[in-house]
Amino acid sequence: MLQAPYLVFLGDATDPLSIKMAKGVATWKPALCVGQYRLDGCTESANLPDMSIAEAAEKGAKTFVLGFANSGGKIDESWLPHIKEAIENGMDIVSGLHDKLIDFQELVALSSQHHCKLIDIRHPTEKFATGTGYKRSGKRLLTVGTDCSVGKMYTSLALESAMRENGINVDFRATGQCGVLIAGKGLAIDCVVADFISGAAETLSPNNTADHWDIIEGQGSLSHPAFAGVSLGLMHGSQPDALVICHALGRSSMRGLTDRPLPTLKHTIELNLAAASITNPDVKVAGITINTSSVSEQQANEICRNLSQELGLPVVDPLRHGVQSIVDNL
Amino acid sequence: MLQAPYLVFLGDATDPLSIKMAKGVATWKPALCVGQYRLDGCTESANLPDMSIAEAAEKGAKTFVLGFANSGGKIDESWLPHIKEAIENGMDIVSGLHDKLIDFQELVALSSQHHCKLIDIRHPTEKFATGTGYKRSGKRLLTVGTDCSVGKMYTSLALESAMRENGINVDFRATGQCGVLIAGKGLAIDCVVADFISGAAETLSPNNTADHWDIIEGQGSLSHPAFAGVSLGLMHGSQPDALVICHALGRSSMRGLTDRPLPTLKHTIELNLAAASITNPDVKVAGITINTSSVSEQQANEICRNLSQELGLPVVDPLRHGVQSIVDNL
Repeated sequence: MLQAPYLVFLGDATDPLSIKMAKGVATWKPALCVGQYRLDGCTESANLPDMSIAEAAEKGAKTFVLGFANSGGKIDESWLPHIKEAIENGMDIVSGLHDKLIDFQELVALSSQHHCKLIDIRHPTEKFATGTGYKRSGKRLLTVGTDCSVGKMYTSLALESAMRENGINVDFRATGQCGVLIAGKGLAIDCVVADFISGAAETLSPNNTADHWDIIEGQGSLSHPAFAGVSLGLMHGSQPDALVICHALGRSSMRGLTDRPLPTLKHTIELNLAAASITNPDVKVAGITINTSSVSEQQANEICRNLSQELGLPVVDPLRHGVQSIVDNL
Repeated sequence: MLQAPYLVFLGDATDPLSIKMAKGVATWKPALCVGQYRLDGCTESANLPDMSIAEAAEKGAKTFVLGFANSGGKIDESWLPHIKEAIENGMDIVSGLHDKLIDFQELVALSSQHHCKLIDIRHPTEKFATGTGYKRSGKRLLTVGTDCSVGKMYTSLALESAMRENGINVDFRATGQCGVLIAGKGLAIDCVVADFISGAAETLSPNNTADHWDIIEGQGSLSHPAFAGVSLGLMHGSQPDALVICHALGRSSMRGLTDRPLPTLKHTIELNLAAASITNPDVKVAGITINTSSVSEQQANEICRNLSQELGLPVVDPLRHGVQSIVDNL
C-alpha cells in the first residue's frame, strides 16, 4: 500500500520508453502526483510540474517514486544523494528496478532514522500460500494478450474508468510495477516464486459482493514462450468470469523474439477460454481491444469493424473508440 | 552440483511420507549413499546401513543430506548439533526444506571454517534470463501429469534407465528437490521467480548431439489450479519432442484439493499437446504411465490394455510392467 501523493523522479532520462512508470501514473492518476523532479541532462517529461524535493515536501509529497527503468534495472550510485534528500524530507521511496533499495545499507539506516519505508515493488516480501481454485464471490474480468505489451494495463484502466462512470461497483487490480504505482497497491506477479503464482493471484481479488467487479491487469501472453507460465498462473488464480483480449497491429514478431509471429485472435480466444475454464467453466470473452496506432483512423475503424463481424464480439481501440461497447457486453 | 557419496539424515522421522527425499535417492542411486543416520525415536528407514557421522566420514561421505520434510519446511533447532557434527567432519550440507541453512549464522560460520557448502536446493541462487523458445539441438522428453504426485519423477527415471539399457544416449534432468538429489544436479523449478520459469528450464536441457535424449522430470499439472503456471513454463522451456503422461488410479480429487476430479487422459493429451506446440509444433505423446497400486495386478493389466486400445498408445504401470513399450514408441 503506497502513500500518495507522489513526487516522481525522472533522473537524467533521455529515452521516452524508460519513463513508463512516471508516464503511467501521470496519465492515469495525475491527482496522486504533486510533481516531477528532474536532474540536469534529463530530456524527458511526464508533463507534471517541475519542482525540487523540498518544494514537493512542502506540498505534502509522501512518496518519492523512481519513475524510470534502465537496462539491467540497476540503481545508479549517482541517484543516492537525491534518494537520501527525499528520505530526509520524510518521504517513502518506491522503486520498480531489479536492484533493491534495501541492499543499500546507507538507505536502510537513513530511512529507519526518519521512519520512512523503502519499497521495492519488484520484490514481494509477503508469504503466499499455494492456490486452490476454490470459487470466490463477486465478479472478475482479466485482460489477456496475443503478446506482451499490447495494452493490457491501459485496457484494464480504461475498463475500470468506464465501468465506474456507468455506476458499476468496480476495482482495478494491479499485477505489474506500473499498475501498482497507479493503483497505490497490488503485486508484481511475475516477481513471485513460481510455486505461488496462482496463490498470490487469489489474494489480489478476494471475496466480494455479488455485484462487484475486479478488473485484473493481465501479464504476458499464453502464447509467449518466455512468460506463458506467469500468464496461466495469474489466470487460474483470477478465475475470471470475463476475458478481454488485447492485441497490437503491425508486429512482425512477438516482443523480444525473432521469427515468432503473433497468434491469431481466433486462436487466442480458444487458447485462453480453454485455460481459464480450469477455474471458471463459465468464462466468456467480453471483447477485444486493439492498439491501432500503426494505421490511420479510417483503417483502424475498418479493421475493428471487420474483426467484430468475424468474431461476433465488440472490437475497439480503447484510445480511439473507448471501451463502452465492451462494458455493455458484460 | 552435489558431491557424492551422501550420508542420509532421517532425524526422528516417524512418517513414511516424510522421508521421500531419503527413499528416492536410496532407491534410485544406492551407490551414491554410504548410509543413513537416524536419531532416537526414528521409526522410519531408507533401507541403508545405519551409521554415525564419524563412521560415514571414514567411509568417504562428502555430503550430509537432510532426507526428510516436515509440515512448514522448518529446520528444527534440535538438528543443529548433528548438522554441525557433519560440517566438522568435512561434509557439505544439503537441505530441501523451505527454511534456509544459510539463515543460521552459526552454520554459515562453521561451514566457512571447514570449507564446506550449505546447499539449500529449494532456493536457487543462479541468475536466469527470460526464455526465448528458440529451438535447441538434441531430443527431449517431458513427463506431464493429470495431477501432482502421479509418478512423474519415477517415470522419468525409469525411462532414463530403460533407454540407457537400450544403448540410447540419454540424461535425466531433475526439476524437483528429490530429483536433484538423485541426479546430483538440476534445479527446483517451482522455486524460481515466475518471470524466469521457462528461461531456467531452457538452461536445464541445453543444445546437445542429434541422437541425445534429455528426459525432463515434469512438475505439477496443467490441470492443477495451484501449479499449472509452473507446469506450463517448464513445458515451454523444455520444448519437448515427446510427452509421457502420468496418472494415478483411485483419486477422488486432485492433490491437496476437494471437489476437483482429475481430468480424463483424453483431455490431458489434448491440453498438453496444445500447450507444448507453442515451442515445439512437432510434439507427440509417446505413452502413458499409470500408478495402479490401488488395484490388483489383474485389474491393472486390464485397465492398461483397455486404455491402450482406446488411446492408441502404450499404457503401462512402470513398476508392474516397465516402460520398454514406451521406449519402443519413441
